[in-house]
Amino acid sequence: MNRLLQDLRIVEFSAFVAAPLGGMTMAQFGAEVIRIDPIGGAIDYNRWPITATGASLYWAGLNKAKRSVALALDKPEGRALARRIATAPGPGGGIVVTNLPPLRGLDYAGLTAERPDVILLRLVGNRDGSAAVDYTVNAASGFPLVTGNTGPDGRPVNHVLPAWDIAAGLYLATALLAAERHRSRTGEGQEVVAALSDVMLAAVGHLGYVGDVHVNGRARPAIGNDLYGSFGRDFATADGRRVIIIALTPRQWRGLGRATGLADKFAAIGEIIGVDLETESGRYEARDMIAALLAPWCRTRSLAEIEAAFAGSGVLWGPFQDFVGLVRDDPRCSPANPLFAMVEQPGIGAYPMPGLPLDFGASPRQPTRAAPLLGEHTDQVLRDVLGLSGGEIRGLHDAGIAAGPDGR
Amino acid sequence: MNRLLQDLRIVEFSAFVAAPLGGMTMAQFGAEVIRIDPIGGAIDYNRWPITATGASLYWAGLNKAKRSVALALDKPEGRALARRIATAPGPGGGIVVTNLPPLRGLDYAGLTAERPDVILLRLVGNRDGSAAVDYTVNAASGFPLVTGNTGPDGRPVNHVLPAWDIAAGLYLATALLAAERHRSRTGEGQEVVAALSDVMLAAVGHLGYVGDVHVNGRARPAIGNDLYGSFGRDFATADGRRVIIIALTPRQWRGLGRATGLADKFAAIGEIIGVDLETESGRYEARDMIAALLAPWCRTRSLAEIEAAFAGSGVLWGPFQDFVGLVRDDPRCSPANPLFAMVEQPGIGAYPMPGLPLDFGASPRQPTRAAPLLGEHTDQVLRDVLGLSGGEIRGLHDAGIAAGPDGR
Repeated sequence: MNRLLQDLRIVEFSAFVAAPLGGMTMAQFGAEVIRIDPIGGAIDYNRWPITATGASLYWAGLNKAKRSVALALDKPEGRALARRIATAPGPGGGIVVTNLPPLRGLDYAGLTAERPDVILLRLVGNRDGSAAVDYTVNAASGFPLVTGNTGPDGRPVNHVLPAWDIAAGLYLATALLAAERHRSRTGEGQEVVAALSDVMLAAVGHLGYVGDVHVNGRARPAIGNDLYGSFGRDFATADGRRVIIIALTPRQWRGLGRATGLADKFAAIGEIIGVDLETESGRYEARDMIAALLAPWCRTRSLAEIEAAFAGSGVLWGPFQDFVGLVRDDPRCSPANPLFAMVEQPGIGAYPMPGLPLDFGASPRQPTRAAPLLGEHTDQVLRDVLGLSGGEIRGLHDAGIAAGPDGR
Repeated sequence: MNRLLQDLRIVEFSAFVAAPLGGMTMAQFGAEVIRIDPIGGAIDYNRWPITATGASLYWAGLNKAKRSVALALDKPEGRALARRIATAPGPGGGIVVTNLPPLRGLDYAGLTAERPDVILLRLVGNRDGSAAVDYTVNAASGFPLVTGNTGPDGRPVNHVLPAWDIAAGLYLATALLAAERHRSRTGEGQEVVAALSDVMLAAVGHLGYVGDVHVNGRARPAIGNDLYGSFGRDFATADGRRVIIIALTPRQWRGLGRATGLADKFAAIGEIIGVDLETESGRYEARDMIAALLAPWCRTRSLAEIEAAFAGSGVLWGPFQDFVGLVRDDPRCSPANPLFAMVEQPGIGAYPMPGLPLDFGASPRQPTRAAPLLGEHTDQVLRDVLGLSGGEIRGLHDAGIAAGPDGR
């Protein structure tokens, strides 16, 4: 959290990862982010992981520091209120982020009818409007067929991290600031559209894989955890752990030879197969022979011994750990790291929650804030943003148009 | 490409993915992005994939639309020129992006000595300054131990997409715009620091996995390509392809029952094991039985038959394809998609290159621009940005301080 965007108000109609992450990134920059959900919650409200009582740790994680408003979006009155909140006056207002199909009156035409300078950021699946989510986009990307030690059956391996959604959410954050910059200079709003499949395609292109097929007529092979075009592989330790060891640069490569005492044997390999192990492509070509020397070296040492041998050596390496090890044993994943704060999350309890992975010299880090209860800010937003009276707000609750954290 | 940031000048000292992607994102928004490299290129200049003649498709992919300046950064004169370019006057200048250890005089103190309102965006490995790259950060993240069908040996599976680098690059782009917004309002520059491991930790926390361990005392299991907490799995088709089928929402679930004709059998499963398949957790619990019905349905149909059966049904699904299939057969990955343009890349040839996966209503898409040759803009930048004369520039070449695309 910081306060760099505290003059902005952003309204979010969203579910799952991408738009919630984009909105939350703005909230952690200090913007007022109002997520408007249907009464009872959107389709991501119970998403796993959940607690023993069914509260979603996922929803809490992706909606931190937002305000939550619950409205009957299936009724014209609920949509009209949502539109009024989204288009409320003020130089920092009129910004909408969504990854849901537009509700009637809440598309760009409907929003600009109320406020001509609206900025609407819209994530769609495919550019043609057809559905796509991280899982289907990833299947199309080519990556699952080169991930892991795919056997002769060539079964694809999906990533577990929703990487395309995360990238899309961060593209939305970037686009929001670029569009707001334009509006603050020209007065002009606009609609910005991103397709999740385009986010994937752009990355595949940027990394050179489109060119590889187009120019070279081939694609990179599936090589398990090996690093394509240089040296990197995972190894077992004497105490049942695994480590990844990388040698991308000449400095890392020489450090590895020194720290393991294998430098002479590495040099001999280069001579035997006639490649220059000082180059990345040479190490890639010789990777199985390099690994054949490193594997017994690792297998006869504990993780602690490897750590001691590599300390200060310039070797690029790291242990694998599971989520439990990450949370329990890695001090980076705790309030010892300023990224995290212990936060009391209503309905769940206290646990370490991350803020922005960015430290701004001119805007000090503020404590991470919890996610709201669903509808926690319904009344506050109706009063503060729309100027409704207590009686009007009560009437909306009675009519089932607005709901608070009790669901009514 | 668009022109939203055409008044900004950004200087980049970088290698590999994250900072080059952050800088390129700004370049594709129309900013003047000057990547300053050592003469001969940085350590990513030959990164795979490469062409038959050794040109890096990776480097070309991550440096599109930038200007390239080659200077002797190992000499004080070279660093002094780099500092002058980075701190040249103008309201849109004085912005530096880097993921390399700071060179002498090019750290925040050195830059602000020349231009007090500099914005320096710096990506480090770990917050304490120790080294970390996508591979080692990923090993620590917990994801490799729940990816793929990890067998009893529990061997981790690394992602191939450098997801943490991509997220870090997009965080840098967001941070740059937030810091520039602050400077344009207050006149104040700042240093912004992001750690790659914090980018990972923030994502693990946002997705609920830190809370899961902390609150529930457990972590999600490794379940191959299954979707955690709902239904999703991959299936083989009659013609040797694989598809992923997802049912996250009630609408998708009912569509799947209708399109496959398996609705009654699905309902019977729910009764047999006593779970409500209308809920995500019910479908997750019953996933093996659901899959046991879907597997023969898919195995007896070709991909085309499955596509026909699912058309218009609301089923969320997609085929797996490899990089070759993506580039050759998927029209989204071609200039039929406005994301791509055929670009003549010097030293490589013409192939489809992606622009920004964002369409701005108020700033029309411009054609994607190629990456520069290393040092292509050395003379132009020395002349236009620093105002050096032809004689001065020739002198720098003769002294080995500056180099053009011929390496001299």
